[in-house]
Amino acid sequence: MSGRFTLLARDGNARRGKLQLAHGVVETPCFMPVGTAASVKGLTPAELRSAHAQIVLGNTYHLWLRPGREIIEAAGGLHRFMAWDGPILTDSGGFQVFSLESRREVDDDGVTFRSHFDGSVHRFTPENVVAFQEAIGSDVAMVLDVCVKLPSERERLEESVRLTTAWARRSAYARASASTLLFGIVQGGLDLELRARSAREIVELDFPGYAVGGLSVGEAREAMYAAARATAAMLPEEKPRYLMGVGTIPDLLEAIDAGLDLFDCVYPTRCGRNGRAMTRDGDLNLFNAGFTRDFAPLDARCDCATCTTFSRAYLAHLFRNKEMLGPRLLSYHNVYLVNDLMRDARAAIEAREWTRFRSG
Amino acid sequence: MSGRFTLLARDGNARRGKLQLAHGVVETPCFMPVGTAASVKGLTPAELRSAHAQIVLGNTYHLWLRPGREIIEAAGGLHRFMAWDGPILTDSGGFQVFSLESRREVDDDGVTFRSHFDGSVHRFTPENVVAFQEAIGSDVAMVLDVCVKLPSERERLEESVRLTTAWARRSAYARASASTLLFGIVQGGLDLELRARSAREIVELDFPGYAVGGLSVGEAREAMYAAARATAAMLPEEKPRYLMGVGTIPDLLEAIDAGLDLFDCVYPTRCGRNGRAMTRDGDLNLFNAGFTRDFAPLDARCDCATCTTFSRAYLAHLFRNKEMLGPRLLSYHNVYLVNDLMRDARAAIEAREWTRFRSG
Repeated sequence: MSGRFTLLARDGNARRGKLQLAHGVVETPCFMPVGTAASVKGLTPAELRSAHAQIVLGNTYHLWLRPGREIIEAAGGLHRFMAWDGPILTDSGGFQVFSLESRREVDDDGVTFRSHFDGSVHRFTPENVVAFQEAIGSDVAMVLDVCVKLPSERERLEESVRLTTAWARRSAYARASASTLLFGIVQGGLDLELRARSAREIVELDFPGYAVGGLSVGEAREAMYAAARATAAMLPEEKPRYLMGVGTIPDLLEAIDAGLDLFDCVYPTRCGRNGRAMTRDGDLNLFNAGFTRDFAPLDARCDCATCTTFSRAYLAHLFRNKEMLGPRLLSYHNVYLVNDLMRDARAAIEAREWTRFRSG
Repeated sequence: MSGRFTLLARDGNARRGKLQLAHGVVETPCFMPVGTAASVKGLTPAELRSAHAQIVLGNTYHLWLRPGREIIEAAGGLHRFMAWDGPILTDSGGFQVFSLESRREVDDDGVTFRSHFDGSVHRFTPENVVAFQEAIGSDVAMVLDVCVKLPSERERLEESVRLTTAWARRSAYARASASTLLFGIVQGGLDLELRARSAREIVELDFPGYAVGGLSVGEAREAMYAAARATAAMLPEEKPRYLMGVGTIPDLLEAIDAGLDLFDCVYPTRCGRNGRAMTRDGDLNLFNAGFTRDFAPLDARCDCATCTTFSRAYLAHLFRNKEMLGPRLLSYHNVYLVNDLMRDARAAIEAREWTRFRSG
């Protein structure tokens, strides 16, 4: 039954769960690679599977502009368009639109913005954003929220909480598809009183899942951790909790420890394109001179196709020569590694060894 | 036994052969994808295999500069460095160096040039180019030749033939490895008298294979066809014949018909990066507006992973959005298609249906 979330185990606040979606089951904690414009940059759907990705994220802002709803619908939905038959979560476009700053204008009813591609004018409302995500066939849709860059004055944060709640109410009313779950989003910046207010108002609307939004937007890491942890504790036990925009290894471990279940971030693929290799012992910059003669695998403990086939020296050579194979092989490794970490985290929670795993 | 070339069938001038190399057998006619800097752009060795590539080409000029002989040797050779365990042919760097024009100076002993990367000064001689290719473990090495851009005065062509022969003699004398075959190169531009002189002098040196060089360098297609056909007829029956720099479908069919066996070109991968899809019915430009709503496969007769998984509309979307998956998927298709064409050509020659196949 789509939408059923089952908590299988807990260890401290860390949770091990299972979320049934229209296109399959997602085992949590789970990292979702970002496929902004209907493509996780550089990787095929088959590779995403072999890298153990369970669900990918798409961005409503980008998909709305290109290729647009009509083409995705004509293709038979986003899954068929991009040839990924597993679950897809789409964001609401709120984060992107509010990042446009001078190119958007918000009113109580919605937000008008100019495309960063061609300057054309578009408008998002809570209703049309839900309709778009349902039309393209997302397994999980997000409500249109108001995201504020940090640091921010309390007044702006308060206003963002007010509007996010008002829009969440309209979004809940607008939903029409049983196969698309609609998640609410909690805002409030680093202000725990505002977070509590936002959480109370959003949870009252009884969504099948809740996201912690408005973090990882410029604040210090420790402040982000504290706000995420506090907000997680404000959310109901029995629903999945999604921390938006988090994807480094330390951040993921902290967030799982805080009781969060789902995560997304461009970090693994962006690093993959820029020569930054993620390993459990920390990130490596393949442009460092030492790697040109290092014939060891990227991460000796990783069994992905990149690590078992190619050397650091070869990967460093590809990046120095701007060979597109480099970004591709490294994005694959980074996504694989993060998914591997999530799998191990799930096992550790089940075995009640989370604390040891996390510090190991 | 490395170097054995067996002619299995003929149909008209078209030949069906088998070339035994240190890292495997190459069935001819055969197209060799170009892996300039130890990477066929965008494709993994596993994909090259699944796209039925039998042998890949590396460029001595690029490999000499980056990563350089020392690193390739330390990696255990070019095969291990790039994780391709099939045959590799390397060119001699002659073509690239002579393209540098103002950045190189040729004398009777060799050619001094400046790296296009950093301006550093390097020198190629017939001897050090053979030694380099043997050191990195090429299955087939090419002699250093003097390539002239067309159109050209007869004097320059004559001089290029003279020096190419002198250098070929020194190259033959310099070879030291039994596992690297050294091929001679015939020059002479479009001048058939010079071609005949060059062929006579080069064949006299008894190489295990011969290339037709100095074509596909600016001349009209029909002129290239005539020179390639005439030169092929000047070469011994029992040795493989390699036409350098050819890779469009019409050119390949013409060259096979002329009795040539091996071909290389960046065309399929360069087109792949630029949104140009090769099909048996001609090339398609994925930037054409019509493809944005075309949900058919790229080439309905192609069974490659790109054509069986994705639509033209999706591929067009990827190119319009500069998604790196686009170049990757299209390069794969183009290489697959050309290899498929070669396989069909081999079957047609065996069945003595070459003429019908070629015109069909």
